[in-house]
Amino acid sequence: MLPYERLKKIFARISHLQYVQRILRWDEAVMMPEGAGLARAQAIATLNRSTQQMLTSKKIKPLIEAARQASLSPWDSTNVAWMEKEYIRATCVPLALSERVVKATLACEQAWRKLRAQNNWQDFLPYLQQSFTLIKEVAERRSQVLSLSPYDTLLDEYAPGFNQHTIDGIFSELKTHLPPLVQRIIAKQREESIHTPTGPFPVEKQKQLGLHIMQALQFDFAHGRLDESHHPFCSGGPSDVRITTRYDEHAFMSSLFGICHETGHALYEQGLPGKWIDQPIGNVNSMAMHESQSLLIEMEVCRSQSFFAYLTPLLIQQFGPQAAFTPENLYKLATRVAPGFIRVNADEVTYPLHVILRYEIEKKLFNGESGINELPVLWNDFMQSYLGISTDKNHKDGVMQDMHWSAGIFGYFPAYTLGRLIAAQIYAAFVQGETGEGKNSRVGDFKALNGWLKEHVYSRGCSLSVNELLTEITGRPLTTDCFLGHIQQRYLG
Amino acid sequence: MLPYERLKKIFARISHLQYVQRILRWDEAVMMPEGAGLARAQAIATLNRSTQQMLTSKKIKPLIEAARQASLSPWDSTNVAWMEKEYIRATCVPLALSERVVKATLACEQAWRKLRAQNNWQDFLPYLQQSFTLIKEVAERRSQVLSLSPYDTLLDEYAPGFNQHTIDGIFSELKTHLPPLVQRIIAKQREESIHTPTGPFPVEKQKQLGLHIMQALQFDFAHGRLDESHHPFCSGGPSDVRITTRYDEHAFMSSLFGICHETGHALYEQGLPGKWIDQPIGNVNSMAMHESQSLLIEMEVCRSQSFFAYLTPLLIQQFGPQAAFTPENLYKLATRVAPGFIRVNADEVTYPLHVILRYEIEKKLFNGESGINELPVLWNDFMQSYLGISTDKNHKDGVMQDMHWSAGIFGYFPAYTLGRLIAAQIYAAFVQGETGEGKNSRVGDFKALNGWLKEHVYSRGCSLSVNELLTEITGRPLTTDCFLGHIQQRYLG
Repeated sequence: MLPYERLKKIFARISHLQYVQRILRWDEAVMMPEGAGLARAQAIATLNRSTQQMLTSKKIKPLIEAARQASLSPWDSTNVAWMEKEYIRATCVPLALSERVVKATLACEQAWRKLRAQNNWQDFLPYLQQSFTLIKEVAERRSQVLSLSPYDTLLDEYAPGFNQHTIDGIFSELKTHLPPLVQRIIAKQREESIHTPTGPFPVEKQKQLGLHIMQALQFDFAHGRLDESHHPFCSGGPSDVRITTRYDEHAFMSSLFGICHETGHALYEQGLPGKWIDQPIGNVNSMAMHESQSLLIEMEVCRSQSFFAYLTPLLIQQFGPQAAFTPENLYKLATRVAPGFIRVNADEVTYPLHVILRYEIEKKLFNGESGINELPVLWNDFMQSYLGISTDKNHKDGVMQDMHWSAGIFGYFPAYTLGRLIAAQIYAAFVQGETGEGKNSRVGDFKALNGWLKEHVYSRGCSLSVNELLTEITGRPLTTDCFLGHIQQRYLG
Repeated sequence: MLPYERLKKIFARISHLQYVQRILRWDEAVMMPEGAGLARAQAIATLNRSTQQMLTSKKIKPLIEAARQASLSPWDSTNVAWMEKEYIRATCVPLALSERVVKATLACEQAWRKLRAQNNWQDFLPYLQQSFTLIKEVAERRSQVLSLSPYDTLLDEYAPGFNQHTIDGIFSELKTHLPPLVQRIIAKQREESIHTPTGPFPVEKQKQLGLHIMQALQFDFAHGRLDESHHPFCSGGPSDVRITTRYDEHAFMSSLFGICHETGHALYEQGLPGKWIDQPIGNVNSMAMHESQSLLIEMEVCRSQSFFAYLTPLLIQQFGPQAAFTPENLYKLATRVAPGFIRVNADEVTYPLHVILRYEIEKKLFNGESGINELPVLWNDFMQSYLGISTDKNHKDGVMQDMHWSAGIFGYFPAYTLGRLIAAQIYAAFVQGETGEGKNSRVGDFKALNGWLKEHVYSRGCSLSVNELLTEITGRPLTTDCFLGHIQQRYLG
């Protein structure tokens, strides 16, 4: 077998084990009985170990070197480049360190679940310190090999091609423009009268509604399913996408937008290039791009006026008529802006400020300016300055609100906001392409949008970087213009 | 680390991957969307490969040799012996052959699903031939190393310690005694009048009833769950047992006894010795013993008069009163004997004859007396001679009824009947121990039974062979006496 063919076989096996892990994570959140936690953690650790052993096998390096000499198609060459990147990132971390990370982050997550509910920062601190110390060691080891700063190695994992320098530029524009926009929007919305929907909304009916909308949005049920979990998420693999939501009998919109958001992730997975599905190049482009596709569906498509015109008769059919069920009122409800403590509950205007806060803190941590013990103070300072609210002594709704850091996931948050900007830029290109002179616009046609996204985004896998892809689709690299323009138009237009 | 400690670590990892496989198999049957079949098959194949690589690593043999020199406790010594057995069995089969087996049996199972429905033996034949040829090759390779005949290596996998010689002896007693017993029982039952329960029995209520009975039988829901699938089964792991049943609105008893049977399997898993859970010695003793524990609960406990006295008020509570709901009538229903085509629907008296038929055929196949193409004729001949019914041209209800051979599982069937005999012998010992003079009998007390089984069976893992365990519990090795005595007493007493 040729070296490249051998590499493809090895990386296909790695992708199989990654798919298994993603199914196990779904199972853990949706199905697993509570007493199986330890057995599951050990199983995940062993799978991690097996995956890493495949990835760092001594065979890989000479095979990559030989494959690079071969005459390969552009996609195959890029595939080899991704293989090499994965190989190098993996070899930077010794197996024993990897295992310590898995163990420490698991303990930290478990502690977080208990201690967050108790607002107990003091007891949580040593766990988080331990997680952070290990992730920092990983980042420092990669830093030496990759010629990136430690924090940039983390950013590069979730948003390849972006680093502190580029992100600082983007976020400083947002920091400048968003706070005054928030003030203006709040002032404008103060005058609006809104009808709050009156429940209860039976869970079974919410579920039927969700399934109906998934179908309309082109979710493929032969290759995926919808379930319930404590936090909505998307897992599994391209031919087996598992999405979840949570239901509240008194608030159907949160479960519905959970479904819309996760459906966006799912459509991306289901649209990945079939021929390359078990190869690095067939993966989603990056987590930033993954978040962009969920936010494109949730924020651009499903919080639009035309979506609520589509949704209103469905709501009436499921729950009967009520004053709140008009397109105008539902749109007002879904675009309400208010500063709040919790990132995942934030509206799309204040959301980036939550992300920037976390980014600024992570920079300070990894650049050695601050220690983990200073987090509550830092958090409160940033909240006061960006959103004008205090989290003093309120750790639960402050520094302890997210699972990410407990799970050892540092450097991820910027991907949410980069994703939001990407979504705005890509969706603007779709709308522009559809609404030119003499065109029969297909804006609001879910099938047309899905076909367009499949062609321009999903099927590209990671054959291009984010900025290359954006340039191809929209004519320019990432910009804040489209997002800020969208906010201006939707909220103040 | 000492050699034995290193071995324990390696075999713990192997057990983690086995647990993962069992969760994936559950997921495939219960949750997986239909379009994920190929991705799942590849994932299972890669997991198999990783497990086999761990098991056949060059490190293992010297570690086992060193561990055997160490001064170990009896359990640890037996654990090393099981490690060695697993190692030897695995090294007999080259990785490439293993992969061909996985691929061929997968194709065969898929063909079976389609072709059985069409009663199409002719198109199924080449698939089955291929599966059989590969399993025969595996058996022959093991035969050379293990000094067992090829078929005995298969029997040894599911019922260690048993071989054609010992099974021939046991089955010949059953072949002698059961057919005349069947005739006498049918004659006796002909005079009985029975009320058939009148449905529909809503699935949700059947499920509530099933969960109630699982709880009563001491199923631990913190370490397991109940779901639905096309065929009832038990999978997962000791701290995460997944059992399933299927519901028929018009026949609550089949789903109920499915649940009782799988609960028996689950109680065994949940009662395995915690300290040894990820070691070979902490496994279930054998598939024969596993089947014995499901049959003990289903056949001995849940088809008894006292169980129906317990069940009747629960049925009335769920479904309302009807003529069929008396302990006497339900007992008659659950102990009805009639020869039939389908093994899984057979009563406990004719059931062993279905197994013996398959065993006789497998012997002929592996000893070279018959070819796969002769199966329908052999099947029909044995059915005529054991049960007096013909399967001529009825392949669907004849040779194509079971999934086992398609999945490459040859040599398993005897475990069902060995299990049934073991169940009768163990349950008789429990009853005898509880009903002696001056004793306050706890027969019918599920909690007491569970405690007794935990102490005498479950917690022993595979520290003893079946016959050693039986001798310890009942004073003698496996016998047909208890089972035949039970049949005599229950049906003709």
